[in-house]
Amino acid sequence: MSGCSCLSMESRAGLAATPGALPYYVAFSQLLGLTVVAMTGAWLGLYRGGIAWEGALQFNVHPLCMVIGLIFLQGDALLVYRVFRNEAKRTTKVLHGLLHVFAFIIALVGLVAVFDYHRKKGYADLYSLHSWCGILVCILFFVQWLVGFSFFLFPGASFSLRGRYRPQHVFFGATIFLLSVGTALLGLKEALLFKLGAKYSTFGAEGVLGNVLGLLLVGFGGTVLYILRRSDWKRPPQAEEQALSMDFKTLTEGDSPSSQ
Amino acid sequence: MSGCSCLSMESRAGLAATPGALPYYVAFSQLLGLTVVAMTGAWLGLYRGGIAWEGALQFNVHPLCMVIGLIFLQGDALLVYRVFRNEAKRTTKVLHGLLHVFAFIIALVGLVAVFDYHRKKGYADLYSLHSWCGILVCILFFVQWLVGFSFFLFPGASFSLRGRYRPQHVFFGATIFLLSVGTALLGLKEALLFKLGAKYSTFGAEGVLGNVLGLLLVGFGGTVLYILRRSDWKRPPQAEEQALSMDFKTLTEGDSPSSQ
Repeated sequence: MSGCSCLSMESRAGLAATPGALPYYVAFSQLLGLTVVAMTGAWLGLYRGGIAWEGALQFNVHPLCMVIGLIFLQGDALLVYRVFRNEAKRTTKVLHGLLHVFAFIIALVGLVAVFDYHRKKGYADLYSLHSWCGILVCILFFVQWLVGFSFFLFPGASFSLRGRYRPQHVFFGATIFLLSVGTALLGLKEALLFKLGAKYSTFGAEGVLGNVLGLLLVGFGGTVLYILRRSDWKRPPQAEEQALSMDFKTLTEGDSPSSQ
Repeated sequence: MSGCSCLSMESRAGLAATPGALPYYVAFSQLLGLTVVAMTGAWLGLYRGGIAWEGALQFNVHPLCMVIGLIFLQGDALLVYRVFRNEAKRTTKVLHGLLHVFAFIIALVGLVAVFDYHRKKGYADLYSLHSWCGILVCILFFVQWLVGFSFFLFPGASFSLRGRYRPQHVFFGATIFLLSVGTALLGLKEALLFKLGAKYSTFGAEGVLGNVLGLLLVGFGGTVLYILRRSDWKRPPQAEEQALSMDFKTLTEGDSPSSQ
């Protein structure tokens, strides 16, 4: 009898059990994400002279900030609803929004670094496919955050409006994340080709490290997407949320249970 | 009374109505996809001397074949379940499998072209991130096709096995398609940087055309993904399929309705 008391307490408290394989997939995604960040740092340290805000090393702030902000933190921001399954919905939402704010601030530092570096060197801005995709990512990210905040955190949007917008928010969130990964691949490729040129084809250490980093970026993107898409891993609505949303639905949409 | 007879006949025949906005999104995806193919051809014709199997122009067979096979045809192969909503399930499956076969054959021609061109020129193979991602796409595509064929077209897999594999097949299908789009972007970027070099930053016609082609590739990928993800646009199971699958389920899993 005592063997199953935990489980029954859990289910009495309305807590949903975590699906068995989910923690392993989340751990694997974090391992990949941290490896991507560490390998970006190692690449910049070993082959690009390290990082500084002044001089030629200012450029290197850009890839590191973008990978930390728009790849690792953005990916993790998408996973919070899978990881925090039993926290209050509002807490999880605030964490999701805050992680995006951190991601955006770090990405802004990375953007300032590259524009400032270009200005000092007299290089042209925004001519490459990488930069066009990057600007698109930043605009979409900002608009998505603003609209998401207005609908889900700022009070006022009705439950039916939230319900209709939610699938769009989820789709565009995943799409912006994937476009960020694609843009990072383009930037990495650009950095390798600019410096290595024809030497890229000699299978030198920097080229191979860059390619492995690229595949790890693809792996992180794919793993986050897989965790998001598993329908049986979605956050179940909690008992009190369901009751609350029913009450609000009744109030806001003018339906009463007796009218059914 | 005559005004609603069509609808009622449709619903009596078990036909599902096509969601209102779906045809417009599908038409938009086709417009984007055909523009991508035409613009790739225009780029190769205007700035790369056109296409031939012999000499320096053999390389140009590669981007055109990959865009037709692994972008346009693969994207359309994913959409057949949304477009052919009232055909027999088996017909749609065969079309889905055949479009992938055509896509793979055209991609193989594109692969032979680039390896043959490299061999004649004495260039190294498979050193770049584009080529690593491309080989990954080809392996995953082939494995996905084989496993998909074994489960869904070759008779033998039980309904419960098919049901468990289906979400994985759908996820990996979309992922392989998106990785194909990412690989195309890397290849495009490589082709632009190799030829234009520092001239890329002067906003010349070829660079801008290449960037616009890149954004259109992203747009095609995003639109196909959006159509696939809309849960209300999924192909509904047809009445006879449901009955059939229930019968088979009963037979293959040893359940009988009376045991419920």
